[in-house]
Amino acid sequence: MRKAVGIGLLGLGTVGSGVAEALIAKSDSLAEQAGLRLVLKKVLVRHLHKRRPGKISQRLLTARAEEVLYHPEVDIVVELVGGEHPAKEYIENAIAAGKHVVTANKEVIAKHSYELFSLAKKHNVSIRYEASVGSGIPLVSPFQHDLAANRILAIRAILNGTTNYILTRMALEGRNFASTLKQAQELGYAEADPANDIEGIDAAYKLVILSNLAFGTRFAPEDVYCEGIGNIAARDFMYAHEFGYAIKLLAIAKRDDDKVEMRVHPVFIPKDFQLAKVDGVYNAIEVETDLAGKLLFYGEGAGGLRASSAVLADVLAIARNIRAGVNSVPELKLNPAITVKPMSEVKTRYYLRLNAPDRPGVLAQISRVLGDNSISIASVIQKESDPATQTAIIVIMTYPAQEKAMQKALRELRRLPEVNEISSFIRVEES
Amino acid sequence: MRKAVGIGLLGLGTVGSGVAEALIAKSDSLAEQAGLRLVLKKVLVRHLHKRRPGKISQRLLTARAEEVLYHPEVDIVVELVGGEHPAKEYIENAIAAGKHVVTANKEVIAKHSYELFSLAKKHNVSIRYEASVGSGIPLVSPFQHDLAANRILAIRAILNGTTNYILTRMALEGRNFASTLKQAQELGYAEADPANDIEGIDAAYKLVILSNLAFGTRFAPEDVYCEGIGNIAARDFMYAHEFGYAIKLLAIAKRDDDKVEMRVHPVFIPKDFQLAKVDGVYNAIEVETDLAGKLLFYGEGAGGLRASSAVLADVLAIARNIRAGVNSVPELKLNPAITVKPMSEVKTRYYLRLNAPDRPGVLAQISRVLGDNSISIASVIQKESDPATQTAIIVIMTYPAQEKAMQKALRELRRLPEVNEISSFIRVEES
Repeated sequence: MRKAVGIGLLGLGTVGSGVAEALIAKSDSLAEQAGLRLVLKKVLVRHLHKRRPGKISQRLLTARAEEVLYHPEVDIVVELVGGEHPAKEYIENAIAAGKHVVTANKEVIAKHSYELFSLAKKHNVSIRYEASVGSGIPLVSPFQHDLAANRILAIRAILNGTTNYILTRMALEGRNFASTLKQAQELGYAEADPANDIEGIDAAYKLVILSNLAFGTRFAPEDVYCEGIGNIAARDFMYAHEFGYAIKLLAIAKRDDDKVEMRVHPVFIPKDFQLAKVDGVYNAIEVETDLAGKLLFYGEGAGGLRASSAVLADVLAIARNIRAGVNSVPELKLNPAITVKPMSEVKTRYYLRLNAPDRPGVLAQISRVLGDNSISIASVIQKESDPATQTAIIVIMTYPAQEKAMQKALRELRRLPEVNEISSFIRVEES
Repeated sequence: MRKAVGIGLLGLGTVGSGVAEALIAKSDSLAEQAGLRLVLKKVLVRHLHKRRPGKISQRLLTARAEEVLYHPEVDIVVELVGGEHPAKEYIENAIAAGKHVVTANKEVIAKHSYELFSLAKKHNVSIRYEASVGSGIPLVSPFQHDLAANRILAIRAILNGTTNYILTRMALEGRNFASTLKQAQELGYAEADPANDIEGIDAAYKLVILSNLAFGTRFAPEDVYCEGIGNIAARDFMYAHEFGYAIKLLAIAKRDDDKVEMRVHPVFIPKDFQLAKVDGVYNAIEVETDLAGKLLFYGEGAGGLRASSAVLADVLAIARNIRAGVNSVPELKLNPAITVKPMSEVKTRYYLRLNAPDRPGVLAQISRVLGDNSISIASVIQKESDPATQTAIIVIMTYPAQEKAMQKALRELRRLPEVNEISSFIRVEES
């Protein structure tokens, strides 16, 4: 019987260091869990001679990927370099060389899962990616195993800690987006280039990964309607509060027969909903199912230590299989009947904040435009008339309407002389 | 290759019916998930000729357990009769007959897991019990797989929906325990005999199951210090609110080196903690780990449909193994060094509500007794002096102190002429 499994690590950044340190520090308990020893054989780094804290031996390091990918004693390649290229090629080469692969790479899995899983199947190796969504929160495995008997009806999730941190601070402190982002950057909760986070792209990658697991689809990031949080103003939180809502950036995938809507955008969500109570850098994933009802998985969605929990769970699963002499190649259960529901067909309620001249008849005109597009108003508040500029703020909550109708109404409202500006437009999620 | 797996069902109550119906209604999708068909072969019922809704065929029913346990075409016995006996014997006989076992039985697993797992190992069959804790919320599997690389530091959990429902109503409506329980019974949220729920016994069983998974121990229900919710008064919620806390019945297992404290009792928990925000019949399990940080699993912890999600996940896991020709016998990873920390050594803060004569010097006497036992007072509120009875309510929050010291102080306080009554005594959980 095998006594050890060889691990090759690609990348020694935050997550890579966490994994390497844990492999060393937890060597005994991991061996007990796996039934054989997990031995780090080679580590790809960018700068070979950079000073590094921790216990990792200099002789394990290499700047050449091939020395990891084709190392004869490496059974499992752990890809933690991130980004699309060359990570994807590393994974392909590892698979082709007969290595099992563990990756935390959301971009590669969101964009290329199908071809990589097919390649893994062909070469009879495993590919696992628990850390690619929600970091240490178990998600991939629950979808593959624990929820296997369920039909997944919907996923609603806070998948990006940076934006949830910013929205939480804005809600608590009444500050605007720009200054809150700046503060988040100073505190290390947002990156210097925060576009991927605040525009919802990061969340969209993760939503694609979860949707493909949940619905047996082959969706891609471009299938997700995506809108960031940059346009939310401090006063939107005020009105949200008044109406009984929190504002969150949600990633939503909802099944309606054989169509799945996929979208990432800010939402108004009722304050007493569990997702509305998730604050700060935390992630939370709500899964609505036919048997298990609504489940919520909650935890920190980022950080090297957090991700190392998921990476090592994947490594352990493969090691246990190696020990048992069985192979768990990815199952490609595609449900080709399921397609993406176009955003124009999505139906929600809407929150609208408009700036309008403070004079009679304005509300009548706005109501007429909405009515002409079959959009009913649930409530309307006219606020804060400014005598100096003679403008008023009008806040509207609609009943559920189709996105197509709403977008047409918005175009018409913008053309209306009675409307100075549509200052804010946020969808409502209340199921 | 095998084309089908035979299922024998013991019990056709709420959960049993849910499982049977799902096996029939979801037959195709389950077959796709398992790679072979799941065929219900025989079902043990108490009353053979009772009218039953649903699609289950009368010819599958039997009133004799042996017809299920020893059915030649049954590969997996699903035990859903509940209670300790004869469920335990059914499971033993099934294992001895070479059948894999899936059970939702918290009492049997909490009391007899070690011997049953040993027996299963001996007979080379699986025993799975995901539905025994948290119903459809994945917990057993996350501990066995997803968190395998972690050291579990603590579990804090709302494991009983009935008590959480009652506490939620009491907090919202300011009603007392008795009338709230009655209402819960009328609504079907509490059983006619609610003792197991409200005294914390149900939660203690589930805590034992989770602790044994988390710490590799062989704890039993009697290792759990257990206190119910029957003594909590409406006004305790008022003071909790004032101090910034919610009141919850928590199941707590905390590791301190090689000792684990295990307790189920009402707690004051800071309002902004995620567990404090769990309302109604929901369950939530917080797991504190070294790598993944704090995770929370949330969902409905009861109901036939909910449990059937977990039961079928277990059935699918076994069926997949049968199809792959591999066997997954339970691993008995015991950590014999770990023992139960006696309740007397547990350290928490305490909330105390006393009824005392309304005269000078009372607080001085109470403070002296606490001080003599090395218990420091964090804050004290004297409230609602009643001129008619000349009594006052004194509410005290202490700093952390050992349970042993606190119990001694309570005995001394009860003997004090300056104390009429210790009306309430609730521990505080704030990590």
